Amino acid sequence: MLHRPLITMTTDFGYDDPFVGVMKGVMYSINPLLNIVDLTHNINPQGIQEAAFTIGMNYRYFPAKAIHLVVVDPGVGSGRRPLLAVSGEHYFIGPDNGVFSCIFGQGPKDLTVVHITSEHFFLKKDSPTFQGRDVFSPCAAWLSTGLEIDEFGEVIEDYHTIHLPVTVRQDDRSLKGEVILMDRFGNAMTNIKKTEIEDLRGVLPEGRLKIFLNGREIPLRKYYSQDDDRSLSALINSSGYLELFVYRGSAAPEYNIRRGDAVEILLS
Amino acid sequence: MLHRPLITMTTDFGYDDPFVGVMKGVMYSINPLLNIVDLTHNINPQGIQEAAFTIGMNYRYFPAKAIHLVVVDPGVGSGRRPLLAVSGEHYFIGPDNGVFSCIFGQGPKDLTVVHITSEHFFLKKDSPTFQGRDVFSPCAAWLSTGLEIDEFGEVIEDYHTIHLPVTVRQDDRSLKGEVILMDRFGNAMTNIKKTEIEDLRGVLPEGRLKIFLNGREIPLRKYYSQDDDRSLSALINSSGYLELFVYRGSAAPEYNIRRGDAVEILLS
Amino acid sequence: MLHRPLITMTTDFGYDDPFVGVMKGVMYSINPLLNIVDLTHNINPQGIQEAAFTIGMNYRYFPAKAIHLVVVDPGVGSGRRPLLAVSGEHYFIGPDNGVFSCIFGQGPKDLTVVHITSEHFFLKKDSPTFQGRDVFSPCAAWLSTGLEIDEFGEVIEDYHTIHLPVTVRQDDRSLKGEVILMDRFGNAMTNIKKTEIEDLRGVLPEGRLKIFLNGREIPLRKYYSQDDDRSLSALINSSGYLELFVYRGSAAPEYNIRRGDAVEILLS
Repeated sequence: MLHRPLITMTTDFGYDDPFVGVMKGVMYSINPLLNIVDLTHNINPQGIQEAAFTIGMNYRYFPAKAIHLVVVDPGVGSGRRPLLAVSGEHYFIGPDNGVFSCIFGQGPKDLTVVHITSEHFFLKKDSPTFQGRDVFSPCAAWLSTGLEIDEFGEVIEDYHTIHLPVTVRQDDRSLKGEVILMDRFGNAMTNIKKTEIEDLRGVLPEGRLKIFLNGREIPLRKYYSQDDDRSLSALINSSGYLELFVYRGSAAPEYNIRRGDAVEILLS
Repeated sequence: MLHRPLITMTTDFGYDDPFVGVMKGVMYSINPLLNIVDLTHNINPQGIQEAAFTIGMNYRYFPAKAIHLVVVDPGVGSGRRPLLAVSGEHYFIGPDNGVFSCIFGQGPKDLTVVHITSEHFFLKKDSPTFQGRDVFSPCAAWLSTGLEIDEFGEVIEDYHTIHLPVTVRQDDRSLKGEVILMDRFGNAMTNIKKTEIEDLRGVLPEGRLKIFLNGREIPLRKYYSQDDDRSLSALINSSGYLELFVYRGSAAPEYNIRRGDAVEILLS
Repeated sequence: MLHRPLITMTTDFGYDDPFVGVMKGVMYSINPLLNIVDLTHNINPQGIQEAAFTIGMNYRYFPAKAIHLVVVDPGVGSGRRPLLAVSGEHYFIGPDNGVFSCIFGQGPKDLTVVHITSEHFFLKKDSPTFQGRDVFSPCAAWLSTGLEIDEFGEVIEDYHTIHLPVTVRQDDRSLKGEVILMDRFGNAMTNIKKTEIEDLRGVLPEGRLKIFLNGREIPLRKYYSQDDDRSLSALINSSGYLELFVYRGSAAPEYNIRRGDAVEILLS
C-alpha cells in the first residue's frame, strides 16, 4: 500500500483564530504531499493533562509512521525544550512539558526521545510566542519527508512527565478512581480501566459490582440506550474506561460532575 | 479526470472531542489515498431529523461516487442495523434510524439498501458505544477501495424512515409549512419549497403573495441586502426553500423563532 | 518539488452549518486533486475588517501559487462585483467589499485585479444568496486547474478598499494605536507594528518605553510566561504586532478590553 505521510494535530488553539491554518500552510509549504488530520484543537487553553490523555488514548487509531503534533504550550518562549519522540511505529512532536506523559509512561522499551536543537529546520530561530508555527510545524513536516530523527538533535533521558491521576486498589474488593475528562455529550470519563474492573471481578466471580459517585450508587450498562432510563448510569466506553452518562441527557451538567470527583467500585 | 475517492462526514460529535479525528485515522489506515470532507459535526446531539435534512439537501454538491457517512446515533449498541445505501451515483453509510429519510423518500427507483453484516470489515465486532469508529468508518473506507456493495451484506426493503414535517396545501390559495432549521446567522429555514410557491402562483398569476409567521406579515425579498431594512423578511434561500432572515441581524433570536413555528403563504 | 494546488478558505460561515462542506464539494467536483485548507470560518458574521486583517497577516505562510478564497459578504446578491486578484505569487478570490484591503494596500506594483464576469464558470448564474458556493468556489477550483486570470474577466482599477485603523505618530516620542483583534486566549492585538516601535526607539536609544491602555501603564515582556505575573502585560506577537495579554489568564474579558480601545506608547 502506498505510503502517504500523515500528521495529526492536537492543540488548544481553537477554531476561531487562524493559528491552525497557518501551521498547515507552513507544513504544506515544506511537504505538499502531506495529509494533515485534526485530532482536536479544543483542548482547554493550556490543558496539559487533557492533551496528555487525548493523544495517549487515540494515537493508535492512526496509521504506522504517523507524526503526532501536540501544541499545548503555556511555557512557549521560555527554556522548556522542543521534543521529538518515537514509540513503536509512531512519532510525537511537541514541548517538553508533560503532554506526552501517557506515551512516555508506557515504558521505555522502544521509546527514543530527542531534544530538537537543529535550528536550520525552524521557520524562525527567535520565536518567543508561536513555536507551533516556527518550530514544531516545520520539524514535523521535515520529518515527514523521510529524515532520520538523529538529524533533529541529541537523544535525552530527562524528559518531563506530569503526574496523572492514578486509581487506587484499596483492598481486595474495592477500587477508587476519579473523573478525568468530559465530552460534548456531557459524558464523564474516569481513569478506571476495563481491565482493572475485570481483575477485581476475578477475586469473587459471583460477586456483585457496585459503582458509586460521591456516595450515589450508579447502575452499570452495556450501551447508552440499554434502558430508557434518564438517570445517571455507567458503562465501559469505547476507549476501555468506565464512563458516567445519562441516556439522551448530559450527565456532567445535570449531576454537577467535575473533574477529580471520586468514583468507587465495590465488590460484594 | 482522475478519480480520487471522497468520503463526507456528518455527525453530532462536535469539534471538542477527538471522536472525528479518530474516525479519520481509522479510514486513512485502510485507504491512505482518501479525501475526507467534513459536512458538519455540529448536528444537535442526537438530532436525527436535522441530520436527515442536512445530508438530503447537500449530498448532491459532491462528486459522483462520493460516500456519505452519517453518524447521529442515539441507539448505538442496540439492535438497530448499520446500513449502506446507493442512490444514483452516491453512497450512504450510517445507522438505520431515519437519518437517510430524505434520501429514501426521493423514491425507490434507483435505491438499493444493504444491511451491513460483514463483520470482517469491522474494527471491533463488539462495539456497544462507538460504531462510528468501529463499524461505519471502516466500512466506508473499505467501500472506497472499490469493493462491491453486495460484499457488505444483504439487500433489505424494510429500512427505517422518520416522519419529516410536510407542507399542507390548505386550499387553492394557501399553503402552510413550518420552520425546520436555523443557521449560524439566525436565519430560519422553512420546509416550503420554491416550486410549491411557484405552483401556488400559477393559480392566480397576478395575485399578491403574502407570507405570515404567527400572524405577522413578512415581506419577500430576492437577496439579504436588498433593502437596508432590519426587520424580519423572507427569501428563497440557496437550497430552494423559503427562509426568514434579518439583514445584518439574527432573525431567530430577535423574533424568538423556533423550530416547528407555522409559516403560511396566502395568495390574494 | 511537486505542485499540488492549494486553496485556503476564510469565511464567516462557522462550523455548525454545511455551507463550508458544500463549497468544498463544489471545488473537489471540479478539481479532485485540490488541497483545501481552512484558515478560519469563525470570522464574526459580516466582519469585513476582521477578514481583511486575517488574510492580510497570514496568506504569506502558504506556498506560492496558493489561492485564497475569502467569503465574508453581507452584500451577496447585490451589485457588488466578484474579484480575482494576483499579488506576488498568491491569488485571492472574493467579493469587492474591502476584504482584500490589506492586500491591495501593500502597493499596486505587482497587483492585478480582475472583475470576474465569465459566468460559464459559475455553478448557477442567478445566485442571490450563496455566491460562496455558486460563484467564488467554482472560480477558485477552475483557477487551480491552471487557467489564466484573463479568462475570468477584465482587469479593473476601481476595486473597493475599506478604511483600516492606522497608527498615529503624535510627536517624536509618542505613538498611538488601537486594539484591532482578540484571539481565543483573550489576547488583544493592536495595530502597532514592531517596526514602528523600533523607529520610535531610534529617536532616543537609551530612552524608556512606556505602554498605556486607557491610562494604565503595562509592562513589556518578551514571551507569555516570562514572569509568573497574572496582571496585564504586553509583548510583540508572532505576527509582529504589539499585543496585550495575561499569562494563564484572558486579558480581554478580565480587563474589559474592546476593539478600538486606544493604546499609547511613550518614550521618556
